[in-house]
Amino acid sequence: MSESWNRRHVLSLWDFEPWEYDTILQTASSFREVLSRRTKKVPTLQGQVVTNLFFESSTRTRSSFELAAKRLSADILNFAPGSSSLTKGETILDTAKTYLAMGTDMMVIRHQEAGVPAAIAAEMDRLNCGVGVLNAGDGQHEHPSQALLDLFTICTAIDPINPKLDLLKGKKVAIVGDILHSRVARSNLWSLTASGAEVHLAAPPTLLPRAFADFVQGTTTEGQRPTKGDRKLYIHWNLDDAIVDADFVMTLRLQKERMTSHLLPSLREFHQQFGITRDRLKICNPNVRVLHPGPTNRGVELTSDVMDDGTISLVSEQVTNGVAVRMALLYLMGSTR
Amino acid sequence: MSESWNRRHVLSLWDFEPWEYDTILQTASSFREVLSRRTKKVPTLQGQVVTNLFFESSTRTRSSFELAAKRLSADILNFAPGSSSLTKGETILDTAKTYLAMGTDMMVIRHQEAGVPAAIAAEMDRLNCGVGVLNAGDGQHEHPSQALLDLFTICTAIDPINPKLDLLKGKKVAIVGDILHSRVARSNLWSLTASGAEVHLAAPPTLLPRAFADFVQGTTTEGQRPTKGDRKLYIHWNLDDAIVDADFVMTLRLQKERMTSHLLPSLREFHQQFGITRDRLKICNPNVRVLHPGPTNRGVELTSDVMDDGTISLVSEQVTNGVAVRMALLYLMGSTR
Amino acid sequence: MSESWNRRHVLSLWDFEPWEYDTILQTASSFREVLSRRTKKVPTLQGQVVTNLFFESSTRTRSSFELAAKRLSADILNFAPGSSSLTKGETILDTAKTYLAMGTDMMVIRHQEAGVPAAIAAEMDRLNCGVGVLNAGDGQHEHPSQALLDLFTICTAIDPINPKLDLLKGKKVAIVGDILHSRVARSNLWSLTASGAEVHLAAPPTLLPRAFADFVQGTTTEGQRPTKGDRKLYIHWNLDDAIVDADFVMTLRLQKERMTSHLLPSLREFHQQFGITRDRLKICNPNVRVLHPGPTNRGVELTSDVMDDGTISLVSEQVTNGVAVRMALLYLMGSTR
Repeated sequence: MSESWNRRHVLSLWDFEPWEYDTILQTASSFREVLSRRTKKVPTLQGQVVTNLFFESSTRTRSSFELAAKRLSADILNFAPGSSSLTKGETILDTAKTYLAMGTDMMVIRHQEAGVPAAIAAEMDRLNCGVGVLNAGDGQHEHPSQALLDLFTICTAIDPINPKLDLLKGKKVAIVGDILHSRVARSNLWSLTASGAEVHLAAPPTLLPRAFADFVQGTTTEGQRPTKGDRKLYIHWNLDDAIVDADFVMTLRLQKERMTSHLLPSLREFHQQFGITRDRLKICNPNVRVLHPGPTNRGVELTSDVMDDGTISLVSEQVTNGVAVRMALLYLMGSTR
Repeated sequence: MSESWNRRHVLSLWDFEPWEYDTILQTASSFREVLSRRTKKVPTLQGQVVTNLFFESSTRTRSSFELAAKRLSADILNFAPGSSSLTKGETILDTAKTYLAMGTDMMVIRHQEAGVPAAIAAEMDRLNCGVGVLNAGDGQHEHPSQALLDLFTICTAIDPINPKLDLLKGKKVAIVGDILHSRVARSNLWSLTASGAEVHLAAPPTLLPRAFADFVQGTTTEGQRPTKGDRKLYIHWNLDDAIVDADFVMTLRLQKERMTSHLLPSLREFHQQFGITRDRLKICNPNVRVLHPGPTNRGVELTSDVMDDGTISLVSEQVTNGVAVRMALLYLMGSTR
Repeated sequence: MSESWNRRHVLSLWDFEPWEYDTILQTASSFREVLSRRTKKVPTLQGQVVTNLFFESSTRTRSSFELAAKRLSADILNFAPGSSSLTKGETILDTAKTYLAMGTDMMVIRHQEAGVPAAIAAEMDRLNCGVGVLNAGDGQHEHPSQALLDLFTICTAIDPINPKLDLLKGKKVAIVGDILHSRVARSNLWSLTASGAEVHLAAPPTLLPRAFADFVQGTTTEGQRPTKGDRKLYIHWNLDDAIVDADFVMTLRLQKERMTSHLLPSLREFHQQFGITRDRLKICNPNVRVLHPGPTNRGVELTSDVMDDGTISLVSEQVTNGVAVRMALLYLMGSTR
């Protein structure tokens, strides 16, 4: 199946086809098996260079990509924004082109502005250099590898042996929290609605404007987007309506900066209204599983007893699967060269 | 001998048995031999991941562990506190569990608070994940790998071929400087007194309270601790009493911050009273050797002519042995999995 | 030819012999070929440790050296100035000796003060430890690996198959910009004048004092320096005189700090007088090629249309060749052990 993979860049999930999701799920599944061995390395990308261009700093995501690349036997270059040429007046495209000229084969890019990874990918295509770009989070736009590891985690929770998109058909998934500012939520909307799941969003109105649904449901003029009817998306300003009978509840990280900008009264009030507790989960499907992209504010988005209960929480699985899914993405992107 | 090693974590030396010291000394001795070859690598930890979780930054110790792990062919992840999830509200245990979930096999942890490595080790044991934790310095508590490299350096100075704990029996070792605040001194107290050496401490009273001796000499109620008579420890507020006839003099790094907190009048006065000079060493054993854990304040803890005289100073040997001892620790910890 | 290479350190180009340049050019040429393969690694330095001691931070140059060392299969240690022992009062020589004692085989050193790499190299020689030192930029003194990659880029632009120093005989090379403060310019002066090229400097008088020529043209008393007649060096306070009929134009990075120190009126005025545009290049040789060491201030030292025109600009070639030339230098230095 991976033979027909022809996407050199992974920038956004909005136009992903079901067979592409399935290819990633299956490839990640075999890498997950590799990770359970004592020697967790394969020689796939030996002699290739993966450059982490993290203009916005992140230890956690960078480590996950670094480990994924190392386990594919690639060499890694880490671009550190603090000590960079950027402070010397160089443009972002020139920085990327410098790493290209040094011999980079793939770039993993995080930037605080939406669209930077896509701009660099377009430049790489223009230069016809064969370099693939992976968006590791751009502003409030997308974070596709996070959504794909969430998808993989949900699918393997349903069927550990044979994860595929179809497993989600008819399932109810709730996404709770700061949806407006979340690139994780945006990427997840594409993959989850594509699977045929019912997706219910819950947040205070300041973090979930009514117009948000239109964004996903294809009222824009772009012809390729699925029509409204295809994607089952529902908006709630109330937690219980979103999570009743839910099979999966995805909580989002709440940035404390939101409070200072007057979008929320207090962390305590947010937790009372939208925090996930064992008690509130009682209205869900009895086998409900909870996800969080991390890092977690314990006692805000979810309580410690939910987070640490391995029969409910998938948080640790998400981190482990993150390495396998990123190995799969780098592997598939590398196969297009 | 290493077959019977069963300590998964190295957090403190207070309960180390003599045979454990000997196992480390012998294992380090064979790795020291590896380091003298042109190709200084062994495949022992191939495919394993060693994560440096340095919440307190340190280039020197981190580099030593990084090199030890690389020479065992492990993959390394470096957690950088500056750009970390900690600033985003994540707990230390959650950070450690994130690296666990990514696939870490061993963690090397430094933290400005005593007890953090032990707390993480306890959590790893609770999770039954098989991950070993090495304390690379926690507050003013312990720094066991430093004390073990000091021990290895002293023992190989006596017998380069067959270093063992017994060699120190009846030797006189002086430890000079800021003992109160030194995790290096605390770890060294356990190993040196366990060897049967006479250990003499010298510092101004502000940096060496009388009660300090009780800490080591077992007046606490813990049954396993050796009784007072077993450990030969002496306290001096005067340098000459401590170093007369000494076989080894260990100087400690003086943190300049101590001055601003009024524990010391001036660096110059400290040097006059407790600084090691060629002249003051005349009352020691004629073959006396001097150690310092680095980084050194030349002209404060010891003079340049002492530090740079290879017939007296063991400072450079300590750094070299640090890599071999850390390879031995990672190797032995890895053998318990 | 590399058999006779006997320079353990590369600190400055002022005393390089023509055969040494040719050895580097030829070695870099074979490594450049390695870099065009899918698997871009050779096992030359397996098990060896290359330490990047970058007291002055730099992502770009450090990445280039890191990649060069990785492609020779060396292990890398990166010394980060921010979190270093330096802030703890350790001397630079002690920092270097610590990395030596850990097992460093070669050091790549950048420092904001001229002479630091040479001082460390002298200490390594005194210790007779066989460690080689490569100057990766010291103050306003020299940056030999940059000048050598410029030389390699120019020579391969003339003859891609067989780059050698002789190819530059009779060519006209202009160097334009902040010559006074440029370590890149200083290193380039030695290599380019040694090749028999005519070298023309152009800058405002504040950045190019008349006395500058004496520095290169051997009016000092050092007997080994070539006499004035051997090195063809010309000084201009005007761009056109320097670049008329030029075969190569090297632009230098303009540090914006120069403006605050009143050496230049404004970036705009500098660009009007000394900026390279397509229009101004019309008086050069029709096949003129333009170089810049990067990072570039687009629209200051040169315009974007010049920089992005692959028939004129060699900027990207310089970056690629940087890895090959640094591989050659580490390889040749390693052959002296």
